[in-house]
Amino acid sequence: MSKEILPGIRDDKPTGKPTEAPASYRLDELKLWGTAVYVAAGMSEVDASTVVDNQLWSDLRGVDTHGFQRVSWYVNWFKDGSTDPKAQLKIIKQTPAAIVADGNHGLGQLVVTRFMEHLIEVAKTSGIVVGVIRNSNDWGCGANYPYHAAKAGFICYGATTSVPTLAPFGASRRLLGNNPIVWTFPRRDAPPIVLDMAMTPVALGKVLRARSEGREIPQEWGFQTSEGQPTVDPDEALKGIIPAIGGYKGIGLSTASNILAGILSGSAHTGDVAIGRRGQFFNLIDPGLFRSIDEYYDDIEEMVRQLRLAGEESALPGQKVYLPGELEQLAMDARRTSGVVSYPGSLVQTLRNVGDKVGVPFACTAAT
Amino acid sequence: MSKEILPGIRDDKPTGKPTEAPASYRLDELKLWGTAVYVAAGMSEVDASTVVDNQLWSDLRGVDTHGFQRVSWYVNWFKDGSTDPKAQLKIIKQTPAAIVADGNHGLGQLVVTRFMEHLIEVAKTSGIVVGVIRNSNDWGCGANYPYHAAKAGFICYGATTSVPTLAPFGASRRLLGNNPIVWTFPRRDAPPIVLDMAMTPVALGKVLRARSEGREIPQEWGFQTSEGQPTVDPDEALKGIIPAIGGYKGIGLSTASNILAGILSGSAHTGDVAIGRRGQFFNLIDPGLFRSIDEYYDDIEEMVRQLRLAGEESALPGQKVYLPGELEQLAMDARRTSGVVSYPGSLVQTLRNVGDKVGVPFACTAAT
Repeated sequence: MSKEILPGIRDDKPTGKPTEAPASYRLDELKLWGTAVYVAAGMSEVDASTVVDNQLWSDLRGVDTHGFQRVSWYVNWFKDGSTDPKAQLKIIKQTPAAIVADGNHGLGQLVVTRFMEHLIEVAKTSGIVVGVIRNSNDWGCGANYPYHAAKAGFICYGATTSVPTLAPFGASRRLLGNNPIVWTFPRRDAPPIVLDMAMTPVALGKVLRARSEGREIPQEWGFQTSEGQPTVDPDEALKGIIPAIGGYKGIGLSTASNILAGILSGSAHTGDVAIGRRGQFFNLIDPGLFRSIDEYYDDIEEMVRQLRLAGEESALPGQKVYLPGELEQLAMDARRTSGVVSYPGSLVQTLRNVGDKVGVPFACTAAT
Repeated sequence: MSKEILPGIRDDKPTGKPTEAPASYRLDELKLWGTAVYVAAGMSEVDASTVVDNQLWSDLRGVDTHGFQRVSWYVNWFKDGSTDPKAQLKIIKQTPAAIVADGNHGLGQLVVTRFMEHLIEVAKTSGIVVGVIRNSNDWGCGANYPYHAAKAGFICYGATTSVPTLAPFGASRRLLGNNPIVWTFPRRDAPPIVLDMAMTPVALGKVLRARSEGREIPQEWGFQTSEGQPTVDPDEALKGIIPAIGGYKGIGLSTASNILAGILSGSAHTGDVAIGRRGQFFNLIDPGLFRSIDEYYDDIEEMVRQLRLAGEESALPGQKVYLPGELEQLAMDARRTSGVVSYPGSLVQTLRNVGDKVGVPFACTAAT
């Protein structure tokens, strides 16, 4: 049995150099294989398809630490009973502007997708909705849900709890999650502006990736041992004190998400967050409630124009200016066009392992 | 005429070492003097009293860069006509959950206080309110408004635009404000949890203070010249590239506030934010809409218990764990009890200058 690398999270990746080469695969083949894996692990076909679409959306955006990388996590959770593959979202309280849902310990990428579909429908009538979900799970690439709200015309804020990895500022005991937050803003004829950020200067997924590939991490990432010494060893880093952006500021934002997504939702919070006991918070706002929607869109485009002009006329050497989420959007556009995503060798190996485990061998053909 | 140190912001402080000694003053005397200054500058007595209460609240909390330090800014704005001392808040659109107000280019600490008073009343009925205000101004210590929402039982998020000081990530042209954000959360029998954070690792007020006292700033604050070189000179720092927490993350949060407080409100945004053209965004949420209020408060206290225990049992050497805003609350409690606040010499000198300018000499007696 593989060991836990974070609370509740094991993986099947070897810790040495990967034995598989990096490879590219067609999206349609990945979709078929991934769906079959989740069905073999107990999900319905329609639910499996939703989860795979969500995960491939992450891979399309180049956030490949949060896409198919996590198939092995979820299959493990189904196998050890911590997550129920049949669990469905249930709305347990609804007023015009406030909604409480229960994820019934299901897969986050399923129940949160269903929840956002519901919130968007409600927001079309009420204009402003705050929704919380309890007994949910890892939401994968958090940008996904507010992105779809923005595609439907809403400004959206999203927050989640996650297993404790951060200590209160000034201490070493882990009590708070890295708790990513997301802001999305609709544009008139362009993809939404998408700010998706965790509280660490560097995604923990990148530390996990370095660990699985047997690489050191840069010291400037700011990780410390439990005794407060700088470290470049990914194992030490994952066990030690994980830095937050702006020190007490990032810890403060994590605390806010702990309350919004954990406490307000009636889910677990602080040191008690665990698999199947996570919560999420969403706030959808129709910009047309405040101004004419044309005025809103005009000003958004004027802001974009000013930011692009600054990039053209004052870029620092070797740098370019992007809108929040624009690099990911460019990756998604390119990969959608090509119909192919590329995976590092360590991920290919993980997919083979999980496929063998559930009896659905990873037989996607490497694209050329 | 003193020079601009940030767009639209001059001050009357000499740039050398202060000639006044630090001193402590009684709150009741400061209240009388400050009110008289604003009345002399054209405000009504009741409005002047509101602004002074707001500013002294900041000084009480030890956020003295945002309290009476700014009396000279505001008097300058009245004198140069950029701000109207008689301007009042006007509600221009109201639905059950969405409110748009116009500050009519008045003093931020006046019109935003009036706006929050209104939002709290509306939230008592609707439970969830999003309010935006256009043609507003510097809100001083931003924590003030969400703090009062939390005292009334609401979770509150606040965001503001401010004059451009930050460049898009990867460029040097200043287009975005330092745009502080605030989260507050009510507690059952204790002051609210208050996260009040700007996007820079270090408050710009601290750079202004160092400048006015002729001191260098620490290099680890991360300021750069316009050419991207590290600097410890506060003048160079204020003119150069100002760092944001987490790099693109802090810039992304500033962009979000630019949209929420600038664009959604119909105020100026991006490079056009200026005195009297700022906007604010507030979101008030009644936690009792989602769970019983007792369950919410129980879990908040359980979170506090866990954080305090981590502080007792795992504090790093020489450090203590505080809740967000707790240090400021402790300062406020102590100063309220003593009835006295302490000002550095440079601030005392500024108060004398502004008093002389409006004909209300600063005659508060230094407390012993």
